[in-house]
Order: sequence, then C-alpha cells, then structure tokens
Amino acid sequence: MRSLLLLLLGLLPTLALAQLPALMPVPSSIKTGTGQLKVDASFTVAITGHREPRMERSVQIFLNDLRRQAGMLPLDMSIVDGPSATLTIHSVTGTKDVQELGEDESYQLEITSNGAKLDAPATLGVMRGLQTFLQLVQTGSNGFIIPAVSIQDAPRFPWRGLMIDVSRHFMPVEVLKRNLDGMAAVKMNVFHWHLSDNQGFRVESKKFPKLHQLGSDGLFYTQDEIRDVIAYARERGIRVVPEFDMPGHATSWFVGYPELASGPGPYQIERHWGVFDPAMDPTRDSTYKFLDEFIGEMAKLFPDQFFHIGGDEVNGKEWDANPKIQEFKRAHGLSSNEDLQAYFNKHVQSIVAKHKKIMLGWDEILRPELPNDIVIQSWRGPESLAQAARQGYRGLLSHGYYLDLMWSAERHYRNEPLSGDAANLTPEQQKHILGGEACMWAEFIAPETIDSRVWPRNAAVAERLWSAQTVTDIPSMYQRMAFISHRLDWLGLTHNSSYTPMLHRITGTEDIAAVRVLTDAVEPVKGYEREQLAIEPPTSATPLNRVVDAARPESETSRRFSLMVDDFLRGNRNPELEAEIRRQLGIWHINDAALQPLFGMSFLLQEVQPLSQNLSAVSAAGLAALEYIDHAQSAPADWMNQQLGLVAQAQKPQAQLLLVVAPAIEKLIRAAASHN
Amino acid sequence: MRSLLLLLLGLLPTLALAQLPALMPVPSSIKTGTGQLKVDASFTVAITGHREPRMERSVQIFLNDLRRQAGMLPLDMSIVDGPSATLTIHSVTGTKDVQELGEDESYQLEITSNGAKLDAPATLGVMRGLQTFLQLVQTGSNGFIIPAVSIQDAPRFPWRGLMIDVSRHFMPVEVLKRNLDGMAAVKMNVFHWHLSDNQGFRVESKKFPKLHQLGSDGLFYTQDEIRDVIAYARERGIRVVPEFDMPGHATSWFVGYPELASGPGPYQIERHWGVFDPAMDPTRDSTYKFLDEFIGEMAKLFPDQFFHIGGDEVNGKEWDANPKIQEFKRAHGLSSNEDLQAYFNKHVQSIVAKHKKIMLGWDEILRPELPNDIVIQSWRGPESLAQAARQGYRGLLSHGYYLDLMWSAERHYRNEPLSGDAANLTPEQQKHILGGEACMWAEFIAPETIDSRVWPRNAAVAERLWSAQTVTDIPSMYQRMAFISHRLDWLGLTHNSSYTPMLHRITGTEDIAAVRVLTDAVEPVKGYEREQLAIEPPTSATPLNRVVDAARPESETSRRFSLMVDDFLRGNRNPELEAEIRRQLGIWHINDAALQPLFGMSFLLQEVQPLSQNLSAVSAAGLAALEYIDHAQSAPADWMNQQLGLVAQAQKPQAQLLLVVAPAIEKLIRAAASHN
Repeated sequence: MRSLLLLLLGLLPTLALAQLPALMPVPSSIKTGTGQLKVDASFTVAITGHREPRMERSVQIFLNDLRRQAGMLPLDMSIVDGPSATLTIHSVTGTKDVQELGEDESYQLEITSNGAKLDAPATLGVMRGLQTFLQLVQTGSNGFIIPAVSIQDAPRFPWRGLMIDVSRHFMPVEVLKRNLDGMAAVKMNVFHWHLSDNQGFRVESKKFPKLHQLGSDGLFYTQDEIRDVIAYARERGIRVVPEFDMPGHATSWFVGYPELASGPGPYQIERHWGVFDPAMDPTRDSTYKFLDEFIGEMAKLFPDQFFHIGGDEVNGKEWDANPKIQEFKRAHGLSSNEDLQAYFNKHVQSIVAKHKKIMLGWDEILRPELPNDIVIQSWRGPESLAQAARQGYRGLLSHGYYLDLMWSAERHYRNEPLSGDAANLTPEQQKHILGGEACMWAEFIAPETIDSRVWPRNAAVAERLWSAQTVTDIPSMYQRMAFISHRLDWLGLTHNSSYTPMLHRITGTEDIAAVRVLTDAVEPVKGYEREQLAIEPPTSATPLNRVVDAARPESETSRRFSLMVDDFLRGNRNPELEAEIRRQLGIWHINDAALQPLFGMSFLLQEVQPLSQNLSAVSAAGLAALEYIDHAQSAPADWMNQQLGLVAQAQKPQAQLLLVVAPAIEKLIRAAASHN
Repeated sequence: MRSLLLLLLGLLPTLALAQLPALMPVPSSIKTGTGQLKVDASFTVAITGHREPRMERSVQIFLNDLRRQAGMLPLDMSIVDGPSATLTIHSVTGTKDVQELGEDESYQLEITSNGAKLDAPATLGVMRGLQTFLQLVQTGSNGFIIPAVSIQDAPRFPWRGLMIDVSRHFMPVEVLKRNLDGMAAVKMNVFHWHLSDNQGFRVESKKFPKLHQLGSDGLFYTQDEIRDVIAYARERGIRVVPEFDMPGHATSWFVGYPELASGPGPYQIERHWGVFDPAMDPTRDSTYKFLDEFIGEMAKLFPDQFFHIGGDEVNGKEWDANPKIQEFKRAHGLSSNEDLQAYFNKHVQSIVAKHKKIMLGWDEILRPELPNDIVIQSWRGPESLAQAARQGYRGLLSHGYYLDLMWSAERHYRNEPLSGDAANLTPEQQKHILGGEACMWAEFIAPETIDSRVWPRNAAVAERLWSAQTVTDIPSMYQRMAFISHRLDWLGLTHNSSYTPMLHRITGTEDIAAVRVLTDAVEPVKGYEREQLAIEPPTSATPLNRVVDAARPESETSRRFSLMVDDFLRGNRNPELEAEIRRQLGIWHINDAALQPLFGMSFLLQEVQPLSQNLSAVSAAGLAALEYIDHAQSAPADWMNQQLGLVAQAQKPQAQLLLVVAPAIEKLIRAAASHN
C-alpha cells in the first residue's frame, strides 16, 4: 500500500479525480491497496453484530443515496443476511435513546477487490463510515468501483455543527431536510436551529399559542414538523439543538405577550435587520414563570441535552428607559446592564437545569455567576473562547465560520479552533473546546438561495472540525470540495441547480450565456457591507432575486484565473497557460457587448451594467499587459498608472457585488510595467 | 390594439421573447394594448363573485407560483378584499364536488396599466386564466411587468390528458406532484394513472391486500397517498382517472391471486418488457366476483366518473392452452379470443356501471356488444378513433402522442385528432372525439429521467388539444416551448436541472464540457428501437444511467443547426450565419480529442466513443463542404460519395443513440458537390 499523501498535499492537481478518493473530510488514516471493488446492481449489504432499528434505517438511507448517486433503481442493491454480502457491517453497540455529545463516531473501512468491511464500536461510527463509502464510489472503466483502500477514522472534535437562522427568513421543512442530508454527507453532527428572533417566532407553542400565532406571519413549524425534522436528523446521526434567543432578539415574542418586555409596547414583528431595543423584563417573577413553562414545553419537544438561550446583543435601551428596572438594579446592587443580564441568565440557567438541560449561549452569557457546565458559543473570536476554557467553561467556535459573510472557503478553512489564544491553553483546557459551528444567518437568504450560501463552503468547515489539525492543504481542499459539491446534487441540494433558473429570471430571455460570464466573475460584497451599501434599508419582504443573490459567495472562475495568473507570473511560460489566460480575458472583454442589448430590457440586469463595463475594460488592460510581456517590453509608467486607476475603480462595489477578477489583472499590469 | 398574429405565425423569431407574451397553449383570442401592468411585491388579488374554498386555494397556489417565478418571499403579495387589488377575479359559479368532463374552463383576462381583471363563468376557468397570467409576467426594464393585453380563451377539447405508467417503473408521489404542476401550467385537465401492469400493482387494496403486498416489490401508493394526489390534482383543476389493466397486462395481480388467471401458475412479477401470456380467466364467476369487490373499492377511492380498464394486447395464449376455457368458448358460441374478450368486457362494463362509473379502455374494447357510453382511447391510430365515433362511441386520441417513443415535439404537434378519417366525420360525430392524452410509458424512465421525457414536449400536445386547429406554426411553437420549458423550472420539474448531474455521473470527473457537446448533438433511438437494439434484454432492474438516458428526446442543438443550414442553403449568405455554422462544426470536430482521455476511465462513456468519432468525422466533412461552397467550387463526385458514405455510417444507431446532426451535414455535402 502506498500513502495518499501526495493527493492530500495537492501535489497532483492535474490527475483525474476519478483515480483517487476525493474524501471530505479527510480521514485520520488512509492507505491504498491494489485492485478495486465493483459496485453494481447486485451490490448487497449485511448487518452483523449489534442490530437496532436505527442501524437498519441507516443502511436503507445509505442504499437510497448510493442508488441515486449511481443512477440505479429500487430493485437494485439490497440488504441480505450471511457472509456473501459485498459490504459487511459490524458494530458492537447501538446508540443512546437520545444522541449525546461525545458518542463514539469512529470507524474502520476496509475495501478489497473481494468485498468491503465496515467496523465501528457503535452505530454512529457506521453512519460516518457509510458516508465515506459513498464518497469512495466512482465511475470506473468497467463499472462503478472503489479502489482498494484501508481507512481508519475518527473526528477531532465532538461538536461539528451548522446553525440555520429560520427567523429572519423562514425555511420550510424540505429546505432543512436537504441541508441535513448535506451535513450528514460531510459528517457534521449538530443542527443548531435558531428558532426565534426579532423577525419571527417559528415554533408552535401549545402553552403560549400567541407566540407563533402572532409572532410568525403564519410561517412556523408545527410540533409534528419539529418532531419530524428531529427524527430525520437522528436517522443521520445529527443532534438538534434549539435556540430561543433571550432576553434580546425577542421582539416576535412580545407581539403576543407584551407583558414579557421591558417597554410599554405594543410590539410588532420586526421587518428590518440589526440590533433592536426590545428586551425581556428580567425584574419580574412573571417573566421567569413564563419561561419556566415555555422552556418546560420546549425541553420535552426537543430531546437533546443542550438548550440554547441565545443571550447576544442586548443594547439595554429598554432597560435604561424603564424606571422600575432602574430601581430594581439599584436595589439588587446590579451596577450595569451586563450585571442585569447575568442576573437574568442565572435565573434562566436554573430553569433550563430544572428541565434537565444544559444551557448554551453566545459569548455574552459568560459570567462567573454561572455554573461551569454551561457552554459558550463564540461569535466574537478565539480570545473569548480561550478565556472561557481557562475558566473551565466548554466552548464552541463560530467566529470565522459565518457563512453569511460571504468569505472564501479558504478563509473558513484556515480558521482553526485551537489557534491564537487557544493554542496556548493546556491540553486539559483545550479539551473544553468542543468544536464549532458554521452559522447561516438569514438576513439575505431565501429558500431559493440558502443552499448556495451554505454549500459547498460548509464542507470546508466540516473538514476543519473533523480532520487533523495538520490537514491544511488549500489546493487539495478546493479540489475535493469541487468534487463533493457535485456529489451533493444527488441529495437534492440546489446550490448548483438554482443558478441557471435565477439567471433566466434576471435576463428575462432564453440566452443567458453573457449574464453567466459576468455573474461567474463577481462575488457578493463581504462582511456586513450588503446592508451598509443598500440604498433603501432591506426588510424581510425585500425580494432576493438580484444578481447579488445569484452570484456565488466564492467565484470559482476567479479563483482559477488568479491561480493561472500567479503561475504565469512565477515564470511558467507554457504557451497553453498563457493562451488560456488570454482566452479568458478575451471572453470577458467582449462580454459587455453581448450584454448591451439586454440591459435595457431587465431591471434586474441594469444595476450590473457598470460591472460589465468594468469587466470589459480591465480585461482589455489585461490583454494589453500580456502583449507587453510577450514582446518583452516594459510598459510605460503612464500606461500602468492609468490602468491601475481603472482597476482600482473596478474594484469598488457595484450593485453590492465585487469584480473579484480585478486583482489578478492588476498583477498582470504591474508585471507588464516591471518587465525587463 | 394590434393583433399578435405576427408572433403566432412565428415571423418574428429574432424578437426578444420578453417583448411579447409567449403563451402556450395559444389562447383563442389575444389583443395587445398600450402600457403595462407592474407586478411587484405589493401585488394583490381580490376574489369577487362566487367564493369557495377551492377558489381561495387556487389563488394561494397562484401566488406561491408567482413568488417562485419572480423570486419573491412569503411576505410579498397578498389576497385582499376590496376594489384596490392589482388583480380582481370574478367568477359566477363554483366547481362540482367531483370535477366533471366538460365543465366550463373558459375565461377572459384583461390587463391594463391600472390593473388586471380575470372573469370566468366558473372556478375552473379562473384556474386556467391564472396560468395564463403567470405566463404573461416577464422581466421588464422597470420591474416585473405584463404588457397590456386582452385575452379570451376556452379549450377546443374537453379532455386533455397525460398518462403516466407507474407500473414498469414506480414513480414516487413527489414525481407525480411536480408533473401535475407542469400539467396545470399548460392547462391539461386529466391525469390518467396507469396503476397496474405485468410489472407491478401499485395501489394498496384493503380488500385484496396481496395485490400490493405481493405484486409491487413494496413499491405502491397507500390509499392516503392516492387521496393526497387526487386532492393535489383537484386543486389544480385536474381530474384523476385510474387505470387497472385487464384481462391482460395483469401478471402482477396473479402473484397474490393466481386463481384469477387462466394458466396454472404460480406467477411472479414480470421483470421484462413486452406482451406476455398471462390473462384473467373470463369464464369463471369468481373472476367477476373478485372484480366487483375490487372495482367497488377503487370506485370509492377514485372519485372521477371514469374508470379505465385497459383491455389492450391480450395475446390469448393462456386461453388457448386452457381446455376449460376452450370448452367455454364452444359452449357460448364465442368463435375467437376477441369474442371472448368482448364477453369479458361486457361483464366488466356492467360491474363498472354498477359502481356508477363510465368505462374507458384502449382500442381493443370497441365492440358492438358494449353500450354507447364507454370511451375508447386510441393507441392504434385515427382510423379506430373515427370508426368508434361513427358507431356513436366517444374517443380519445393517444396514437401519435406517445412520449416514450422519443419523437420530436413537431411530430406530436402535427398529430391532429380531427385529421385523417376523423376529418370526414360529421360535426355531430366529431363531438364524440373528446380530446386526447399524451402517454408516458415507463419501460425506460426512472424518477430521475421522467421529467426530461415528458417536458417540454408535453406542452406541444397540450397546445394541440387546447388551441384552435388553425394554430399550426412550428417555429412559433418551438420558440414558445423553449420559453415555457424554463418557466417549468420554477415548479420544481427536473427536465433541465437533472442533465448536468447525469453528465457528471457519466464522466466521473468535474469537466463535463466535452460530454455535453456530444450529448447535446444526439438523441435516443426512436419508436421501439431501444429495446430491439439492446444487447441483453432490459429489465425493471436495469440501471437507467447511460448517455441514452441523459440525452434529450429532441436535440435543440441539432434542430437549430439544421435550421441554420437550411437557411444557408436557401441562399442566405449572411457571413454571420456561415460563421456560426462553421463555429458549430469546429466545436464538434475537435470535441472527440477532448473526450479521448475520458473514454478509458468511464464505462458509461465508452459506449459512445464511436458516436464521438463519427461526430468529429462528419463535422470535418461539413467544414470541407463549406470550403468548396466558399470557393464556389463544385466538389468532386468521388469526394462527395466518400463523405456521404461516412454520413450514412454515422447515422446508424450507436449505444441506442442517433447522431441527429448528420442529416444537415449531408445537405452541406450535397450542396458542395452541386455548387455551380
């Protein structure tokens, strides 16, 4: 057996992917053998060792996924008894009634030309191993095959989550289910469900029905639907942690129950984005009585041992404006609103604990008043995570994993939970860092666009949290992520399939070639710029149908172009490389002419007209730069400065989009001028 | 107002589609006005006149569809009371409890810059008008708009159906629902559900549970699912007609109930395709007792007034081999198996009538013994339809509408129910021709591929059955069908979105550009050739994941190329036209080189290697032909003959595919040789 180190280091980027397993996340250990296992319609699975309904169901789900991936039919492939099966599964123990943090997820997978063996201490490891199996299956010269391989695998962190905000824009159950399928494919194990916020309360409450009746615009999950999602997640080895944000981010509660709030009311569902004043009144017993009943109801509905109370971004304005609350603070020696919130959190924690749950909250809940078993989710940064760990609190990293900020997969991938302050923790303290969660905040996503914001970048976060800290090769990550991205199509995720229909809507015509060229070359603005750059404040009712909604968070076209330019400027004078750069610049250069007749016809296209002109202009500059370089002439400084001005102009946001191919062109221009 | 005649005649193919309504089916009367109606997030609908739950639901479905199409959100657009609504709906009466054949579907739609009015005698017409409204909405320069227009519309035929065979390959409920959405979009009103055949019995029967338990491989619809599909169809103005094929095509019944059959049994679910021997025993009272109970159960489950008993393709072999049946025939003076089947049908008809249903069956059931109220569905041709009409029977045309035969949309579109013998019927007799049904037989379709076999071609059938007989312009039909095809993406139909993932599976690599070029240029073989050309007999378990499954029934690339070549050879010497032909030939010519490295890596690609070589070779011939033509030389006869040999060779089926671009290239070659 030879090591796959070469692949993992990305040193073989030109080798066809079908030759080597493109696993994501990378397993702990992988050794290739000789020969290959055929996976055809006669494929069978035998379950040996511990048996339980969840195991049977896992294998059925696996077979369905395998059939979809291979284009096979329900009559193909089956579960059998006995030793002749293609894949023999063995596990020692089953699963807990409610999946727990830290359950064993390890597995061993052995593929030879004679068959496959999947061994795991428990059902959960079998689930993870089956996902590896699916990623291994490839189209071969004689059928679908898996190259002989031996894999040992276990996760680095026990908490690998995705948070989805369903408050700012509601996401129907089918959207959640397909994303749970995607999470399972990359071995994530926690779905953090952000269920309430200022803009909507999304769960049916039988005890306090005005919560969903008045706080959701009719867009909420029934308790049956909640149970259905939890069961669906459980079948895929995923825990479901609910979050009910309090005492702030809670306007939607107050529409039906204004008595919970600190202000005079009345309240309406918030339509805008940001941090708002309304907050629960932490001084009244009735607040805690309400929360006790409510949390009691929800603690039964959501079986997971953790319960997220949010706790972020209380601006304190309603508290400051309420004389009774001011009086209460004085009477109780609470000198700041932070103290008052800590007082609130302590009460809420005792309620959560009474209902047999462990409290989880954002950074702000970290206060010495609270017991050590709570878990801190860090949106502020690794410092607060390290600080929590030093104080004996467990923590999760989410800072750096905010998918809504439109950063590159590389940036998320480089975001190491045990870096910065956390790198200096003792091994014992480091164990307090349970893992992390990617966060999909929903200000600018709709059911149509959420998948393209979560995927494929979420796979990079999943790998960071599963694979060894030493797995850091960026080209390898991108190569495997592209492969996994197409695999996710089989699960019904729409991050790829929604692109073309959105471009059709935007152009209003059949021919979308030119708008695709432009949209492929841009990215949405980063961080919180989209809201800042908006001409009118966006609301929950603002359509999300623009080019900025169709454009991918990370332009693969631009990434590849930049790599080619870097390669070329490092001295690679392969004529095919330069021809490819020239071809791409040529396409961009003439694209604006193709789009011109369409701008006047579509309001959704009009706003990107400056971008299109800029793309054409900077591409012309890039082509001219290549000419200088080809003729071994140094371009005049005047020319360079003029072109750099053009490029600088082109890099300004337009229509909340960035022309991300511009920096690579800038490099060509500078190289042309410095050419000797 | 000026007429849209120009569009309808297809004389403006180069005009951008967004400028003029691309309606399909074409309405009875359409007049454009001046100005346009804006359709934005503030869009509202008011329901006036007759109100019923089905109307409210229709409008909700409409708003959801409109939001999806426009990329809007649940908070956008609403139902309001009062006169200020953007769209005011008025209908006089509601719908029957069970939708009936011939209910009024007419409507009037008036769009001005101030608002829209939709008037219809009944709810069903409102539904049809709302679909027209959706097709009218387009991306404009200032927002989504509808150009001012006045439409009067009513269907030509009252029965416009799609039959889906779910026996040969089972189709899950979600597949049916998205196809019902598609049917509603093109105003079809009957879903004919072919529920049993030799290869599977797909309905839960509480009276005879062994039907689905032993006859379906576990792939059947529960009665709750059936009710759900019927309710879903009803909300979209679609009747659901069940078919239980008998006395032949019934092997799956006999697995659980061999006593129904004419042979000794035992029986197994049939895995192959074709006409098989097993048939019900028409001589036993117990057969009719069984059918009475069974039809009684199904007559309650399926509320439609029609009940389809199949009745096709009984080969009579089991009857001939059974001495008791031979004896029975002699004793009852039945001189042929056709007589025996008529005897059977007469009994079944009385059972169907007893359960208050009207019997429907394929051609073969037409016999003078049967009462005049039965309906004949013609798969044999217009002659039998005309024959039935002359005898006073009502009929449906399906001959010529078999979507599984992979014919062009044009061929289906030209298939006029009142042509041939039927054209000579008296007007009174013509009224007996109720319409027709497209048929999607399922030997070679799976849930992944059915949509691309039904759509967009089914829209051409829908137009033939809805629009006037004089609406026959082929270029206009293709132009509008392409537009509608993209619109269907919003409804979740996968005919477009499944293509890329299938090509990824076939190549096993990320780069699918070359395989797309090839697959775009081919079509599956026609008629029943796929089975005839199969090396091994295909079965229900044969994977449907090949290039022939990904290739579209009609290659749009090839169709457009042929049109360009025809235009060129008619004398259009526009240099852009020739350049475009040359460009396309160039892409095809070099494509084989790009595919070469991939053939050895994928078993799914290997079989199309000869096709790829042929595409390259004939394209080279085409390029050479253009050279002769450009230089005004006549190509030598030797050259021509050699090239024609090449083209003839290239037109032979390979991998059950046809290189459909070859005939246009042949024209270029012949033109080169005849050039003066």
